[in-house]
Amino acid sequence: MAKSSSPKLRIVPLGGLGEIGKNMTVFELGNDAIIVDTGIMFPANDMFGVDYIIPDFSYLTGRKDLKIHGILYTHGHEDHVGATQHVVQAFPGVPIYATPLTAGLIEVKLKDAQLHKSTKIHTFRAGDVLKVGPFVVESYHVCHSIPDCVGFGINTPYGIIVHSGDYKFDNTPVDGKRTDYAKLAEFSRRGVLMLMGDSTNADSPGWTPSESVVEGAFDSVFRQAKGRIMVATFASLISRFNQVGVVAERYGRKIAVAGTSMAKNIEMSRELGILKVPDDMFMDLSRIGHYPVGKVVILVTGAQGEPSAVLARLSTGRHRQLDVQPGDTIILSSHTIPGNEESVNRTINRLFQRGADVIYDPIAQVHVSGHARQEEMKLLIGLTNPQYFMPIHGELRHLRAHAKLALQSGIAYDKVFVVENGFVIEIDKNGARVAERVPGSYVFVDGSGVGDIGKAVIRDREVLARDGFMMVVVNVDSKSGEMIDGPEIVSRGFVYLRDSNELLDTIKGTIHDVLLSRNGDSPARLREKLQESLGRVLYNETKRRPMVFTVINER
Amino acid sequence: MAKSSSPKLRIVPLGGLGEIGKNMTVFELGNDAIIVDTGIMFPANDMFGVDYIIPDFSYLTGRKDLKIHGILYTHGHEDHVGATQHVVQAFPGVPIYATPLTAGLIEVKLKDAQLHKSTKIHTFRAGDVLKVGPFVVESYHVCHSIPDCVGFGINTPYGIIVHSGDYKFDNTPVDGKRTDYAKLAEFSRRGVLMLMGDSTNADSPGWTPSESVVEGAFDSVFRQAKGRIMVATFASLISRFNQVGVVAERYGRKIAVAGTSMAKNIEMSRELGILKVPDDMFMDLSRIGHYPVGKVVILVTGAQGEPSAVLARLSTGRHRQLDVQPGDTIILSSHTIPGNEESVNRTINRLFQRGADVIYDPIAQVHVSGHARQEEMKLLIGLTNPQYFMPIHGELRHLRAHAKLALQSGIAYDKVFVVENGFVIEIDKNGARVAERVPGSYVFVDGSGVGDIGKAVIRDREVLARDGFMMVVVNVDSKSGEMIDGPEIVSRGFVYLRDSNELLDTIKGTIHDVLLSRNGDSPARLREKLQESLGRVLYNETKRRPMVFTVINER
Repeated sequence: MAKSSSPKLRIVPLGGLGEIGKNMTVFELGNDAIIVDTGIMFPANDMFGVDYIIPDFSYLTGRKDLKIHGILYTHGHEDHVGATQHVVQAFPGVPIYATPLTAGLIEVKLKDAQLHKSTKIHTFRAGDVLKVGPFVVESYHVCHSIPDCVGFGINTPYGIIVHSGDYKFDNTPVDGKRTDYAKLAEFSRRGVLMLMGDSTNADSPGWTPSESVVEGAFDSVFRQAKGRIMVATFASLISRFNQVGVVAERYGRKIAVAGTSMAKNIEMSRELGILKVPDDMFMDLSRIGHYPVGKVVILVTGAQGEPSAVLARLSTGRHRQLDVQPGDTIILSSHTIPGNEESVNRTINRLFQRGADVIYDPIAQVHVSGHARQEEMKLLIGLTNPQYFMPIHGELRHLRAHAKLALQSGIAYDKVFVVENGFVIEIDKNGARVAERVPGSYVFVDGSGVGDIGKAVIRDREVLARDGFMMVVVNVDSKSGEMIDGPEIVSRGFVYLRDSNELLDTIKGTIHDVLLSRNGDSPARLREKLQESLGRVLYNETKRRPMVFTVINER
Repeated sequence: MAKSSSPKLRIVPLGGLGEIGKNMTVFELGNDAIIVDTGIMFPANDMFGVDYIIPDFSYLTGRKDLKIHGILYTHGHEDHVGATQHVVQAFPGVPIYATPLTAGLIEVKLKDAQLHKSTKIHTFRAGDVLKVGPFVVESYHVCHSIPDCVGFGINTPYGIIVHSGDYKFDNTPVDGKRTDYAKLAEFSRRGVLMLMGDSTNADSPGWTPSESVVEGAFDSVFRQAKGRIMVATFASLISRFNQVGVVAERYGRKIAVAGTSMAKNIEMSRELGILKVPDDMFMDLSRIGHYPVGKVVILVTGAQGEPSAVLARLSTGRHRQLDVQPGDTIILSSHTIPGNEESVNRTINRLFQRGADVIYDPIAQVHVSGHARQEEMKLLIGLTNPQYFMPIHGELRHLRAHAKLALQSGIAYDKVFVVENGFVIEIDKNGARVAERVPGSYVFVDGSGVGDIGKAVIRDREVLARDGFMMVVVNVDSKSGEMIDGPEIVSRGFVYLRDSNELLDTIKGTIHDVLLSRNGDSPARLREKLQESLGRVLYNETKRRPMVFTVINER
């Protein structure tokens, strides 16, 4: 029970493009704080030129009074660990708590950013109890699409807060490790103040199939395939590599790996003992020519159709070591992330063009989601029986759908908190409520720039993407006021000027007219008039609106 | 039976971005030809600035020997009729054959293009036999997601070619009109030379649900909703309007319409008697304030998240007459077209933000596909029992999946033609084969320009979209060779120069260095050097590659 002197507990979800409470969450108790996860998001198709997006944590850097005791990670996916170097840079020396695989993935990032020496990583295993500042945090294992995932039971003066992490209830997981029902039931027995639950699939009815069903689909493909088999999947989907290993062994195929990130992760998970495929099952990609086509399986990256990854390069014949041959069978063992549909479908079509047979969902169940569906969500609510419920991990539509499930499960309307990032949930002895809003948006990373690209720059890129631009340099005789030897016209993304003699004549005519009607206009005014007139003429002629810039040199 | 003197029959699928044999197909018999459908495609997300895409029919304009006797339309969707004005412009006076609704939709396009007076539209009804040049074409009704759809049985000297159009087998269609089983069976009895079948859903197992299930989902929403109901759907989904009408009447709600294209289509289909909702069920949008919220349903456009359509404007509070209120229920009765997922999801989230409850698939079955799935495809093959099979309407992956179904249905491998657009299928008394390839690609339409935007312009737009550009104007004293009063820098889509004093200093320093090391370089060479140096410096400083243009004025 809370002492009357206990400081307020505050939960602050930060960052996230669309997704809420996913990438980074702060738990504060008075002046002490911990962070759960520090992930990135990937830009939408209309966020031109943005490489990735990190949470705006300016709220935290502004809270000079706050002592951050540690960052705790639920698992190693980019949307949970990808911004680690940015956060560690802002809070030098903050310790990190992660399971072995997650720690390994984070270490790579910290090394790249030269931050690994100054950062202490505490490695723990699911079930370990962590004492971080005033918080006692009980980790527990959850199933998801990467090994070594945990959720947290965070003990506070007001009760336990159960954070689900990314989870599903898989009763036949590939590694044999179920989500820790016993721990969840124990939390419930002790009394759960609040459940924070993953909402990703909250609009999908039923129960997500077990990872094990994928093996059956693989078996049927491996049994029938006569040529080489390639399996494209996420570089971090290590349980899938185990499944490929099992089926490959069954059908006497050796495994090669194409794709740097995937090779690195396989190396790491073999060292950690997470990947259980025997060493002699692997061969170097350069050696596949020494084996009959029926004895080879190749793991490749690029299942999202990313242009620079292996699968897209194979589909366009741009891979250095590998090419697609008629008779190859290619399995896309992945879920298409919204926004990538066009590039994935294009890649599949091109692979078919090259003579491969391509197996993808829904052709066969070669992938299952790593997130719980509605029935599992209701099970988690039932198992933990929380006083308050806060749906997290998902877009607003998913949070609302998850909230409906909580209401159906008997939680009262005023005990359910559907909030957007930056809203503070405040808890004291009188209960929980939504308090103030702090900056909780996101920051664009483009090249080496963090946050120097704002909406105005994106808007300019959008205009340039649509209609391009035109630059016109006019040399004017300062005595006669007439154009000499010109104009020089440069345009990009507008039309082929070389093919547009008529348009060129129209542009020259417009310049001539504007110069004639100068009437003592200042150089600045003349330039402005010319820009306006050209913009108008170009729109009339082409129904397009390129950006127009003019330079007038008077000689 | 074919006379030995019969000319060759040729089938030429044209156009299509990804989709094959969908937008436009030519049937030739010697020097006589007919066209089936002349549709458009919508650009992919990376086809910057392209408004829409039409088939490249330069093959046809090049065949001066060919007499085109008519264009026959299967139905009124844009991907089948959208390019009509472009084709009619190229072949003035070519007659059009269409069912009443399709004819109505085409007429609007021809009027906009001032081509309606010079174009003869022959209106026919499903079941009518059309004599077009040497072809006797038997039309037959098919179910799809717009009324008045047909397929064609095209009689040729070598047998009947059955073209499915866009179809599904709906045994309980909303308008009571099933796909014409009897006609298909009759074709089969007479002997089908070739089946050309819609492949859109060829990777989906099972049978597409009937349009009727949507009514059940609507009923459940209407029964529970206390506030206003808005239904967003395709502007051409007239059977859906009928369903809304039935349920609205049941629950005593009046219907208003928001969206010009939808209002036009409703007007037209009421005139044609296709929309059977009583007149007094409709009210003007301006009158909704006069009814209690529980007595109103509003049909709106924009179910694909298109920024300028009603739903997106409602989601951002930019609609002139309407706003979303807490208590509103909004149904998205539509399928999200691949590539639109991000904008649809964003729109849904924003509607939730404004307090509406949003119902979409998979929350409830408020939409069903208009295309057949695998079991229906096998039924069509079984009903027609064709000698040859040519999957059409779909990406290559769908065609391959459809071909597998044909093989399973007993059609021999060498009788199945999976070809891309532009491949000619040639048929004579010795059988069918793939002949030469003709141009069968597509043409971009941007603003008023048709085909003046090529890959190079799109590539420039892509570069501009990613990193923007910078223009630097340097005034140089021709005597001292030094920079005077400058430089003038304009950049768009790159960084906020105003916030980047350091970068400005670096640029100035670079200009200074380049001018210093001129060494008698020509103005052109100097300019080139400056452009290169600036590009390098900007990349080093920002890891971005904007386009750089320089102007050097010597005074």
